[in-house]
Amino acid sequence: MGQDNRSAASSQQVAQVDNSQDEKSLLLHNSPFMKACRREKTERTPIWLMRQAGRYMKEFREIRSRVTLLELCKTPELACEVTVHAQEKLGVDAAIIFSDILVPLDALGVGLDYVKGEGPVIERPLRQESELDSLPELDVRESLSYVMQAISLTRKALKPDIPLLGFAAAPFTLASYLIEGGSSRNYENTKTMMYCRPELWQRLMSKIVSISIDYLNAQIEAGAQAVQVFDSWMGCLSVPDYQKFSHPYSAQLIAGIKKDVPVIHFGTGNVHLLPLMKTAGASVLGLDWRVDLAKKWDELGDNIAVQGNLDPCVLFADQRYIRSTTENLLASVASKPGYIFNLGHGVLPPTDVDNVRFLVDLVHDYKG
Amino acid sequence: MGQDNRSAASSQQVAQVDNSQDEKSLLLHNSPFMKACRREKTERTPIWLMRQAGRYMKEFREIRSRVTLLELCKTPELACEVTVHAQEKLGVDAAIIFSDILVPLDALGVGLDYVKGEGPVIERPLRQESELDSLPELDVRESLSYVMQAISLTRKALKPDIPLLGFAAAPFTLASYLIEGGSSRNYENTKTMMYCRPELWQRLMSKIVSISIDYLNAQIEAGAQAVQVFDSWMGCLSVPDYQKFSHPYSAQLIAGIKKDVPVIHFGTGNVHLLPLMKTAGASVLGLDWRVDLAKKWDELGDNIAVQGNLDPCVLFADQRYIRSTTENLLASVASKPGYIFNLGHGVLPPTDVDNVRFLVDLVHDYKG
Repeated sequence: MGQDNRSAASSQQVAQVDNSQDEKSLLLHNSPFMKACRREKTERTPIWLMRQAGRYMKEFREIRSRVTLLELCKTPELACEVTVHAQEKLGVDAAIIFSDILVPLDALGVGLDYVKGEGPVIERPLRQESELDSLPELDVRESLSYVMQAISLTRKALKPDIPLLGFAAAPFTLASYLIEGGSSRNYENTKTMMYCRPELWQRLMSKIVSISIDYLNAQIEAGAQAVQVFDSWMGCLSVPDYQKFSHPYSAQLIAGIKKDVPVIHFGTGNVHLLPLMKTAGASVLGLDWRVDLAKKWDELGDNIAVQGNLDPCVLFADQRYIRSTTENLLASVASKPGYIFNLGHGVLPPTDVDNVRFLVDLVHDYKG
Repeated sequence: MGQDNRSAASSQQVAQVDNSQDEKSLLLHNSPFMKACRREKTERTPIWLMRQAGRYMKEFREIRSRVTLLELCKTPELACEVTVHAQEKLGVDAAIIFSDILVPLDALGVGLDYVKGEGPVIERPLRQESELDSLPELDVRESLSYVMQAISLTRKALKPDIPLLGFAAAPFTLASYLIEGGSSRNYENTKTMMYCRPELWQRLMSKIVSISIDYLNAQIEAGAQAVQVFDSWMGCLSVPDYQKFSHPYSAQLIAGIKKDVPVIHFGTGNVHLLPLMKTAGASVLGLDWRVDLAKKWDELGDNIAVQGNLDPCVLFADQRYIRSTTENLLASVASKPGYIFNLGHGVLPPTDVDNVRFLVDLVHDYKG
């Protein structure tokens, strides 16, 4: 299976890294996060948080009061600043480049905007063959160069032992935004295309896969040590629909990513899809709080790492509650190599930053 | 377990019904829907659809153009009309009274309104002890008498062999609307109350349970043959959170419903909660398309009936696709007594009514 090849290769890689790479690469290679991705033992459980640079931080809000979300994404110096600031303020074991999964849609010229209270809006949603035909060929190194510049700056600014993650949406998730014209509750137009226009669906997904492979590899070349694929909305699909309309494209995307780079495959509400999801080939599965993590990891087998899965709302509780819930989770999974602590989804805007720091310390100080 | 008691009692009931009830009761008792609720063999698979009376029907839209949703709920003659019309037009095996799960919030005086494009909005969401204290004591037979009147009228207007369902929200789902002030993506305020104010949560849930038991029993007295408990948003909870904060109240509610009346316990996105959900005691579990129905039913055991679970979006496809998907589902579950065909959630507004009728015929004509 994909993740076995991926991991086997990266284990053989150690000697090569020792000989040929410089000290900085070794520091990164031996960081707790990278070790956990390879299912090697770590001295402490690594932790990072989705949306760790976000509106819950006053320094972030201060910057966002001056620029729009897209302007922030498109200004490498600012994207670098918020990325590095969050990592340092929280003391987490990895940084993720500040950006948005939808910037490729901006590059495709379909009119991406973020409307207050509504989230992302696509001015010209794609529903017809002709709309697909009229999308431009994308050279992501050109049209999304600001992401690669941000990664390059951030790699230089981060401490040398802190891995930097790149990321992209999984094909189904990106397609659903493009087709629905924004967030969705029922994915009506997306599923209609899947069921009624399977050949159009296939063409669209293949185009997205090809763009996304280029995009993730460009991020890796620019300085990312690992990547996360946000298959965030896969959970809205039945098992046969996921198998037919989504899984093949996620698998193609993951297979196209440079070898020896860990891939975290993240989804929510997807308990029913886990065995299939594993066969898409990632090194790490990122899961949400609906999964009994210890039990499902057992069922999935030892040849895959896992990341997750505290409910982000637990950070609204008092520290006594945060401690007991976190320690229960750690007790169930942290003794096995290949576990990365994270929330089950992004940090929510009303979260108290002190509770996030408290969580990071809890995970670091935990003795199983 | 609850559902065993419930079902054993209703099987012993047959003789009693034969002797003491009139012919109409016998017709209802022996209808395919009621038989399936009791896991008895049926000549054909019974089917009804959540939100079968709804905006996808032009006759319904015509009535809704003259009255608001709340006015429609509060006018027994109109609620009866749309309920009976949908059952007859589709030829389904059961009717569900036209109403809304949130009418108890209107009766509680918290300012329920339905805002176009936003869904339900609660003007005065409940977050504090004092807000709970100031809620009135509710006599549902008085304040929700329009629902009971609608049921009584509808029972008389329906064909004598068509069972009528009453319904209510499950405690967690009703509480989440009341606390969030409407629909929610993350249930931030609801979970904050659960974690930080467990005693307030418990008091609120107990009050809701007590209201809902009265409400469902009043619906049964007015003429409903079965009831559905909409635990629609339970799937947002982790296993331990569901167990601690939601399951006990759903179980209390179900235990409080008149004996020998089938209870359908419906949830979405809740694959992870199924074994626990079964112990809440319903006779039938209503499940969504994220569940591999045949497999999960096997795991749950034969002492429970199941309802579901076609993705409502499948009705946007062409009839060839609808046929193959429906026949696959039927082939996997329809041979076992205790299966009721339904969608995994309500009929969506853009659905073509001809496709719904096509689906009903497909299910009725299916020879396994």
